[in-house]
Amino acid sequence: MAWDVFSLIGTVAFAISGAIVAMEEEYDLFGVYILGIVTAFGGGAIRNILIGLPVSTLWNQELMFQFALLAITVFFLIPHHLFKQWSRWGYVTDAIGLSAFAIQGAMHAVHLELPIVAVIVAAVLTGAGGGVVRDLLAGRRPIILRHEIYAVWAASAGFLIGLEIFKGDLFLYFLFVSITVLRICSYTKGWSLPSKKIYYTK
Amino acid sequence: MAWDVFSLIGTVAFAISGAIVAMEEEYDLFGVYILGIVTAFGGGAIRNILIGLPVSTLWNQELMFQFALLAITVFFLIPHHLFKQWSRWGYVTDAIGLSAFAIQGAMHAVHLELPIVAVIVAAVLTGAGGGVVRDLLAGRRPIILRHEIYAVWAASAGFLIGLEIFKGDLFLYFLFVSITVLRICSYTKGWSLPSKKIYYTK
Amino acid sequence: MAWDVFSLIGTVAFAISGAIVAMEEEYDLFGVYILGIVTAFGGGAIRNILIGLPVSTLWNQELMFQFALLAITVFFLIPHHLFKQWSRWGYVTDAIGLSAFAIQGAMHAVHLELPIVAVIVAAVLTGAGGGVVRDLLAGRRPIILRHEIYAVWAASAGFLIGLEIFKGDLFLYFLFVSITVLRICSYTKGWSLPSKKIYYTK
Repeated sequence: MAWDVFSLIGTVAFAISGAIVAMEEEYDLFGVYILGIVTAFGGGAIRNILIGLPVSTLWNQELMFQFALLAITVFFLIPHHLFKQWSRWGYVTDAIGLSAFAIQGAMHAVHLELPIVAVIVAAVLTGAGGGVVRDLLAGRRPIILRHEIYAVWAASAGFLIGLEIFKGDLFLYFLFVSITVLRICSYTKGWSLPSKKIYYTK
Repeated sequence: MAWDVFSLIGTVAFAISGAIVAMEEEYDLFGVYILGIVTAFGGGAIRNILIGLPVSTLWNQELMFQFALLAITVFFLIPHHLFKQWSRWGYVTDAIGLSAFAIQGAMHAVHLELPIVAVIVAAVLTGAGGGVVRDLLAGRRPIILRHEIYAVWAASAGFLIGLEIFKGDLFLYFLFVSITVLRICSYTKGWSLPSKKIYYTK
Repeated sequence: MAWDVFSLIGTVAFAISGAIVAMEEEYDLFGVYILGIVTAFGGGAIRNILIGLPVSTLWNQELMFQFALLAITVFFLIPHHLFKQWSRWGYVTDAIGLSAFAIQGAMHAVHLELPIVAVIVAAVLTGAGGGVVRDLLAGRRPIILRHEIYAVWAASAGFLIGLEIFKGDLFLYFLFVSITVLRICSYTKGWSLPSKKIYYTK
């Protein structure tokens, strides 16, 4: 049950996040659909390829596919003059997708009885993978590599789920809200990890 | 028979299209070969990975590989002073490759008795995939996401073939010429789908 | 034995090369780890995907993973004021990784009794793949497609190993040093293959 909820939330949130980036970059209608779909399903595809699961399971998610198409269509049709207020919605939808898919990916790995390191990796790949594909196709620096804390939140979700101390749907929903809020705060408050610059001379 | 013809046309056209982009970006001889080969075989590789077919079938296309190498070599050796007139050949070769591979990918999916949605997806992935890889490696915005109608033509080919109403090689050749011409017209006449811009503030 | 040595050298060299690029681009600590790991393991992943080997073998290299993490950590902690002298270390570590992984990939293909063309392809994919992923994620033009001779050296290593005339660890170590030195010279002395420019008008 919780699994389906997180799949649905993640798919719709990332589909809209991809559509937003496509519209910011002035892609046409078809480009909006392509980037929305790629963002919604890219994380799962990357996880399946790298973990060695059959990628073709992607094509059995017909219901998710229809929800993604519906979400993109509704978003595209929303009246233009509302868009002024949407400038941060790209980050909000991305944060929701990151959180939902990180949890879904971790649950998947726990279900396969993988070790905790693999659970963390699955959380990061599933949560962040769609955004990486979206940003590469749009010619942007991947959000996962920008300054504010991002993938660490996905890794934390994977760690907490991989411990298998806390269980039950209530814990998962609480985790989902926490990770989403923490990611949005990272962006709005500019939380970042330490960094060190090397000067590039050539 | 038609299958082999479309494979050959698509491979040669995309190989030259990759070589053109590489030469526009001032890559050296080896870079011209790499980008040509990646463009010619990238679409099929992406389709196989995402549809769950063995990617290693790529390596059985020895004859296609030799044709691609030959096409790149001939193109590279053509006297320099003719290049002035080539400025739109990059688009023309890309359009030919798109059309040939969209039809070939759709035929492949029909042969596997996949549903019509999968036939359309296979047409888009096979037709547009090589160009996406080419443009990402060259640091360009993927042509599939630029303004003039592009992937819609591949999807249309997939739809018409997936209907399985029209059959026979003659229909396929007619479709190939039509899709190629429609794509070239989209570019030269600037046909585009509706788009909506969101202003990106940050 | 030699196989393990080349795996270790390549993994550590590419992990540091990825960390250097991440620090040049001002990524944070987690970004440095991600780009280091992706660079160290990306070449092997691409090779396995394209040659049709199970990608999941990646996850059995626990020891290599720990060495990569250790190398990145040590590199990150090195005092800042030494960095002035590091400006070319990015190229040196990349050259070491290219050479070690090209040889390792070629050995792998020979072990699988693949034909010599496949040995050369495996050498190029394994040697250059990690750097391509690194550069795409960092928004740079892939080093393999820049001006100074790069992938040709990996191909040469594949060719010499694929001939199976020379054998023994001593030959492999000699080859490793030669390829590394030749690649570094290509960069410092600006050796390049012929190129031809097409002027891009639009």
